[in-house]
Amino acid sequence: MMKQFFVLTLFPEMITQTLSHSILGKAQQKGLIGVQAINIRDFTQNKQKHVDDYPYGGGAGMVMQAQPIYDAYQSIAEAAKGAKVIYMTPQGKPFTQKMAETLAKEENLVFLCGHYEGVDERIIEEIVTDEISLGDFVLTGGELAAITIIDAVSRLVPDVLGKAESFADESFSDGLLEYPQYTRPPVFHGKAVPEILLSGHHANIAKWRREQSLLRTAKKRPDLLEQANLTEQEKQFLEHQNQ
Amino acid sequence: MMKQFFVLTLFPEMITQTLSHSILGKAQQKGLIGVQAINIRDFTQNKQKHVDDYPYGGGAGMVMQAQPIYDAYQSIAEAAKGAKVIYMTPQGKPFTQKMAETLAKEENLVFLCGHYEGVDERIIEEIVTDEISLGDFVLTGGELAAITIIDAVSRLVPDVLGKAESFADESFSDGLLEYPQYTRPPVFHGKAVPEILLSGHHANIAKWRREQSLLRTAKKRPDLLEQANLTEQEKQFLEHQNQ
Repeated sequence: MMKQFFVLTLFPEMITQTLSHSILGKAQQKGLIGVQAINIRDFTQNKQKHVDDYPYGGGAGMVMQAQPIYDAYQSIAEAAKGAKVIYMTPQGKPFTQKMAETLAKEENLVFLCGHYEGVDERIIEEIVTDEISLGDFVLTGGELAAITIIDAVSRLVPDVLGKAESFADESFSDGLLEYPQYTRPPVFHGKAVPEILLSGHHANIAKWRREQSLLRTAKKRPDLLEQANLTEQEKQFLEHQNQ
Repeated sequence: MMKQFFVLTLFPEMITQTLSHSILGKAQQKGLIGVQAINIRDFTQNKQKHVDDYPYGGGAGMVMQAQPIYDAYQSIAEAAKGAKVIYMTPQGKPFTQKMAETLAKEENLVFLCGHYEGVDERIIEEIVTDEISLGDFVLTGGELAAITIIDAVSRLVPDVLGKAESFADESFSDGLLEYPQYTRPPVFHGKAVPEILLSGHHANIAKWRREQSLLRTAKKRPDLLEQANLTEQEKQFLEHQNQ
């Protein structure tokens, strides 16, 4: 069954164009995932095609109205029955790889992308099931956040990634950062590939890589180490480095 | 002086198309920001136009080679003289609004987008000045991460945001989440706008909004509260809520 993403947005072309490239473009051509962008503006009921209005209580910026969003959602509510409706907002739960794994198990997903100062609170109460934040920063709209999550989720859908993009040994898959990678030529601008990688000794290479992962994580993201599954030996290795 | 973004990528159209919409599209038309995508593949020296090769030491996936990236960078090195070269990677420093503010002060920025299993470590040592992570999740490539950062940075460039998108009272600007917003109609699906917002009493509205920000942050992101600048009165208000 194809995984279908529905995106409620003021910029439907931004959604479909951005996702038409590279790996996700191929995944759509193969019918592994589907992306449907619904233009909220098509559902406005006023002649000027406005989708926003001034905030009650005053203040800068405009607020997206509930009605066009509600009607846009209704147009796909049957096709997306039972699907989570995710509002992209800095108020939401910060997005993580674990969340991507959970969302990858869902059949369909609906995203609501806000603009301006946000959306009328009542539409969130009415249709939204999950609020997700891409991180502690502010974007011009929810579109890039939704696209990014669609990307992170889609690559976990079976067959979307080819061999070249294999995700066997990547960052976060074991709670650690990835070890450094090298490819041809053996010397680039006077910098040689670490000798051990040319040794052909698989066990030593695996050990070196694991140690590099540990060292990098300890140096760049010590917060990740606390939650990682380390053996006693690995803990001692790291302690030894700090002395 | 126009702020110029240079993006080293295998998918230049994905960069330029995605940034051609909405607020950032307008900002480019007005000459407030410029975006130049450089196709790394144009700089490969082999007939097959390969830009990647097998990793030394074995393992799944392919690694992007140093030479085409280096030459792609050289093609803009003069124009981007003195600019930070940012590699988008889960290994990097997690991106925040504070980082966006710092990057918004730079004249030019260069982004390197990786694909497959990443890039040869030596090109990072050779040209990269900063490693940034969009968050603790994995994407099919660095493009969406670079586009997202360009968006977050560009909206802080003077005149990029119009009145409708004004950023006076938004999330993180004071370390708290934003208060709920409402706009016409006064009743939607039986849900009325909070009465205080219709009162016209500005001081009471400001107080209510601040309290809503505090309550939301306490409920959804208590970690943010610890770093926020709260008055004694606000601390007491929150303590009182918990009783």
